Amino acid sequence: MYYKKAIVAIADGLGDRPLPELGFKTPLEYADTPNLDKLALQGITGMMDLVGPGIPVGTDMGHMVLFGFQPGEYPGRGPIEALGIGMEVQHGDIVIRCNFASVDENGIVLDRRAGRIRDNTRELAEALDGMVLEDEVEVYFKPATEHRAVLILRGSGLSDRISDSDPKAPHEGKPYYDVEPLDETEEAQKTAYFLNLFLQRSHDILSSHPINGRRALEGLPPANFILTRGAGRMANLEPVVRRRNFKGSCIAGESTVLGVAHLAGFKAVTSERMTGNMDTDIDLKAQLALEEIADNDLVYVHLKAPDLKGHDNKPFEKAQAIELFDRMVGLLAKQLPADTYLAIAADHSTPCEVGEHTGEPVPILIYGPGIRRDRVFQFNEIDCAHGGLGRFRGHEFVDTLHGLMGYVKKQGN
Amino acid sequence: MYYKKAIVAIADGLGDRPLPELGFKTPLEYADTPNLDKLALQGITGMMDLVGPGIPVGTDMGHMVLFGFQPGEYPGRGPIEALGIGMEVQHGDIVIRCNFASVDENGIVLDRRAGRIRDNTRELAEALDGMVLEDEVEVYFKPATEHRAVLILRGSGLSDRISDSDPKAPHEGKPYYDVEPLDETEEAQKTAYFLNLFLQRSHDILSSHPINGRRALEGLPPANFILTRGAGRMANLEPVVRRRNFKGSCIAGESTVLGVAHLAGFKAVTSERMTGNMDTDIDLKAQLALEEIADNDLVYVHLKAPDLKGHDNKPFEKAQAIELFDRMVGLLAKQLPADTYLAIAADHSTPCEVGEHTGEPVPILIYGPGIRRDRVFQFNEIDCAHGGLGRFRGHEFVDTLHGLMGYVKKQGN
Repeated sequence: MYYKKAIVAIADGLGDRPLPELGFKTPLEYADTPNLDKLALQGITGMMDLVGPGIPVGTDMGHMVLFGFQPGEYPGRGPIEALGIGMEVQHGDIVIRCNFASVDENGIVLDRRAGRIRDNTRELAEALDGMVLEDEVEVYFKPATEHRAVLILRGSGLSDRISDSDPKAPHEGKPYYDVEPLDETEEAQKTAYFLNLFLQRSHDILSSHPINGRRALEGLPPANFILTRGAGRMANLEPVVRRRNFKGSCIAGESTVLGVAHLAGFKAVTSERMTGNMDTDIDLKAQLALEEIADNDLVYVHLKAPDLKGHDNKPFEKAQAIELFDRMVGLLAKQLPADTYLAIAADHSTPCEVGEHTGEPVPILIYGPGIRRDRVFQFNEIDCAHGGLGRFRGHEFVDTLHGLMGYVKKQGN
Repeated sequence: MYYKKAIVAIADGLGDRPLPELGFKTPLEYADTPNLDKLALQGITGMMDLVGPGIPVGTDMGHMVLFGFQPGEYPGRGPIEALGIGMEVQHGDIVIRCNFASVDENGIVLDRRAGRIRDNTRELAEALDGMVLEDEVEVYFKPATEHRAVLILRGSGLSDRISDSDPKAPHEGKPYYDVEPLDETEEAQKTAYFLNLFLQRSHDILSSHPINGRRALEGLPPANFILTRGAGRMANLEPVVRRRNFKGSCIAGESTVLGVAHLAGFKAVTSERMTGNMDTDIDLKAQLALEEIADNDLVYVHLKAPDLKGHDNKPFEKAQAIELFDRMVGLLAKQLPADTYLAIAADHSTPCEVGEHTGEPVPILIYGPGIRRDRVFQFNEIDCAHGGLGRFRGHEFVDTLHGLMGYVKKQGN
């Protein structure tokens, strides 16, 4: 058996619905996409339900499936975020998403985002990172985008069955919540105790931190408290690259996608010039993808913009984001090495008129050596529903691709 | 509820890919197949994944599914081979694939295939068949094709968790292996003990066998040892004919297919004139299929040649093999009784350019009374992907056929 390679270009939130503003075309139908249509003509197309028909998925779940995990293997958002910002996560770690927040001396939450703080969060995080609680629980704390951060509690006998300290938006002006165990287990009690201890310690440290002193002089709300939510326990997932015994790489600006890449055992490649918006550098992405495929078997390259415009209900801008994706795909197709497949996929639909992820399937396409061409010559939600791949699940699309590459083991003899 | 009958014609390894030598047609597209195309016009078509998209299957697994088993019911190669050469296999039997081999007085393996012995293996096998070891384990031993044979150990408390005595090709010139238990169970220890005992006994018997005396005079290596591999334990599978309560028959030259037919409770019909190659007698196969359908409900008729040509990477010859299949199908269609369906299927794809089984789906077709005709009028991997049956799993194709025949029980009321 010989092996082939593949590049998968992912347009985040690509799927949409026919819109009156666009003459009842979808943004993908409306957009000018010569490169995608050429690949449709020369390749095979179909429709994909990431998890199942009608079931909406998050960007994290959608990419878990696209990278080759089973839907049931989802480890929760926390661990993916932690891996996405380059934290090293171990099996059993309790991973918690955080905000820097402002509280007064009575613990009243004045601002859940500390005035959407962007600057100096690294210094503030460093003041908390590496703390050890009662010689028993290690604390790792790293800043994420803007006011966000990720907290890891590491120690024996910890549980993710604990409540949030974040009272959420409607409760600004009320006190933050104490963390409570969500079940009777000793592990949950212990974890809640240590997390509350951390909240106090970090409050003391942040309150007296020079950065907050300076913010006070500038009239900015202090980043003097850590609000926590969505605790998750890191599961012991075998990386996809080990299951299939190949090498993978992922080019993306989005930390969630990079986190999934880490989880799957793929090399995570990113750059400041990948912004997750229209100003992202697609030339750089295409160039890196073509470089990475040289010493990898499977490369994913991701574009966030279409999802963003779907959430914002901006049909024309979503069409422009898709044209940006089409140009990136054109660069990939032009220099695609022989014996390498080029696949087009998406992690979910984000219809403009909904502004959220929906369960409608997304169009997919596979182009490359020995592919069975179908009769479809335009890449969109309508034509691909008549494509030769038919309609199948995300993991079946991945098996199809891995199978073409030669990495799926034969059953029987 | 009234019942109907069906004949299923199976083209082994039919599925392929567009090939430059054939003007980027698949061998099936390239071949002249008037009978298959006529059935496509008058019937309904689709694509089938035997186990799942992208997953390659062996001929044994593919036929297990086509005969109506679930993929998880696969009993291993040994039992299927045993049944294929007409051995009666019981639940609990340990079935082991064997070679006649040549060893010297020190147990050094001189030739793993005893000079690819073809003649007199029946007499040699008869000298071992029916042996009883320590009044406890019965031995059944039958020759298969060329130097191959099948060994059955029958007794209480036996296990298939034992190692091979066959040192495999790279170790020719080294001693054969003693059989070791692969786990701590008493069953495995016991089975290893008795198999080693059989190897000694059979060595003594074969060494002094007149056939080997004659081979010595002719300067041929002696068939004086039995190398064993791939032990399997016969599972307790309810035959498909009992599950569905119908009668079945199978016409094939290939022992693997005949073995699956036995497992499914189908009558196994074969002949010396069915060679598994281009010189097989398709007129005889068609004639027997039409005879068998008279007193059976479901008849399978199998042609091996397309798979062979795929493995050999011979696109034009594969097209010829498919034209042979088309003629056989034409003979069946011409004399097809009323109230009998004619279905076309395959066990897997064997693309010439790969030379191995791949996970790409195969085209399928059902023609017969009251069928819902679709818009497809050519039978191949491209057109059938747009067929009215859509794309589904092997067991769903079988349920569809059994359902049309009237043998699938209603759920609910």
